[in-house]
Amino acid sequence: MPKGQPSVVPDDGLTTRQRRNRPLVAVHTGDGKGKSTAAFGLALRAWNQGWPIGVFQFVKSAKWKVGEERALRVLGASGEGGTVAWHKMGEGWSWVQRDPTSNEEAAREGWEQVKRDLAAETHRLYVLDEFAYPLRWGWVDTAEVVEVLRQRPGTQHVVITGRNAPSELIDAADLVTEMGKVRHPMDDGQKGQRGIEW
Amino acid sequence: MPKGQPSVVPDDGLTTRQRRNRPLVAVHTGDGKGKSTAAFGLALRAWNQGWPIGVFQFVKSAKWKVGEERALRVLGASGEGGTVAWHKMGEGWSWVQRDPTSNEEAAREGWEQVKRDLAAETHRLYVLDEFAYPLRWGWVDTAEVVEVLRQRPGTQHVVITGRNAPSELIDAADLVTEMGKVRHPMDDGQKGQRGIEW
Repeated sequence: MPKGQPSVVPDDGLTTRQRRNRPLVAVHTGDGKGKSTAAFGLALRAWNQGWPIGVFQFVKSAKWKVGEERALRVLGASGEGGTVAWHKMGEGWSWVQRDPTSNEEAAREGWEQVKRDLAAETHRLYVLDEFAYPLRWGWVDTAEVVEVLRQRPGTQHVVITGRNAPSELIDAADLVTEMGKVRHPMDDGQKGQRGIEW
Repeated sequence: MPKGQPSVVPDDGLTTRQRRNRPLVAVHTGDGKGKSTAAFGLALRAWNQGWPIGVFQFVKSAKWKVGEERALRVLGASGEGGTVAWHKMGEGWSWVQRDPTSNEEAAREGWEQVKRDLAAETHRLYVLDEFAYPLRWGWVDTAEVVEVLRQRPGTQHVVITGRNAPSELIDAADLVTEMGKVRHPMDDGQKGQRGIEW
C-alpha cells in the first residue's frame, strides 16, 4: 500500500510536477515468479491512461505469454484505452523480411527496432520482456542500452524483465524489483499448468 | 523463462495430470513493487482460459488499482474470456447492506464472502489483494484461513498479496514469491505517478 509520500525531498531543480512525470526505467529481475507478470500488470495501468504500449518479447518460444498477449490485444482493440503493439522474436519480428540466422541476430534486430521507436517516441510504455537475457549473454551491448535509455526523448517509460539483469543496467534504472523465489510447486515435482504458468 | 520441468518426481500417488491441475495457493509478499501487479497479471492468464475470476480488494482506499480494475472489467465484459467479479472493501462490499463500523469488521465481512464463494465454487481464480494486512493485524484469523484454503473443494486457485504475510500462511502456500525492493524512485524523493503507481 504505497503512501505516495517521498522519504526525502530532492534538491534537483525540478518542480514536483516535473519530478512526478519523470520517465522511468524499471527492471524486474531475480529467480522468482512475477517478473513478466508484473510488467504486463503495469501495462494495464498504462492502457487505462490511454498510452500507446509497445511489447517486445525477447524469447524464442512465446508460448508462456499467450494469456497476457490475448488480453492486451483485446484491450488495445477495445478503443477504451491505449493501443497495444505486440512484437514477438519467436515468430520473427514483423519488420524483418528474412529469417535471422541466429537468436543473437534476432535479439539485435529487436533492440534496433526499440531504438527506432524510442527515437520516434512511438510508445509511452515499452515492455522489453526477457531482455535481460540477451544483455547477460552479450548479444546486445548493455553500455549502449544504458546510453540509449539515458538519452531517450520525451516521456517514455521502459520496463525490462529477466533473471540476472546486468549490474550496469540495474545501476541505471530508477525502479528495481528483485522477485525472489521462496517456494515454487515445481520444486515438489509439479509441472506448469495452464492459467497459472501461461 | 520457465522450462516446465520439475526438478524431482514426487511419490505422492497422483498422476502427472492430477498433479498438474492441482489448485494452488500463491502468496506475493515482500516490501518491493509488483505484488498486486503480478496477481492481476496472473488474472490475464486466467481470463484467457475462460475462468471466472473473483477479485477482493482488502484496502480502504482503492485508488491505486483503478487501471487494473478497468482493464479487467473491460476484459470480463468482452465475452472473449472469463468473467470478472470485482469487490472493493473501500466502497463497501456489495453484499453488505449497512456500513461496517470499522475496517476490522469490513475485512471480516470480506473474508466471510470469500468463504461462501469458495464453498460454492463461484470462481476459479481468487485475487485476495492486500489480504496479508488484515491477517497480520489479527483482524482475520490466519489459522482459519489456512484451514479453509486446505479444505476448499474443486479446482480453485487463490492468490494473496501484501507485505509481511504471516508465516503460517507462507507455510501453507504452494507458491511464494518475495518481491524485494532494490531501488524505488520514492527513495529519491519522486512521488508516485499515474500510469506507473496506479
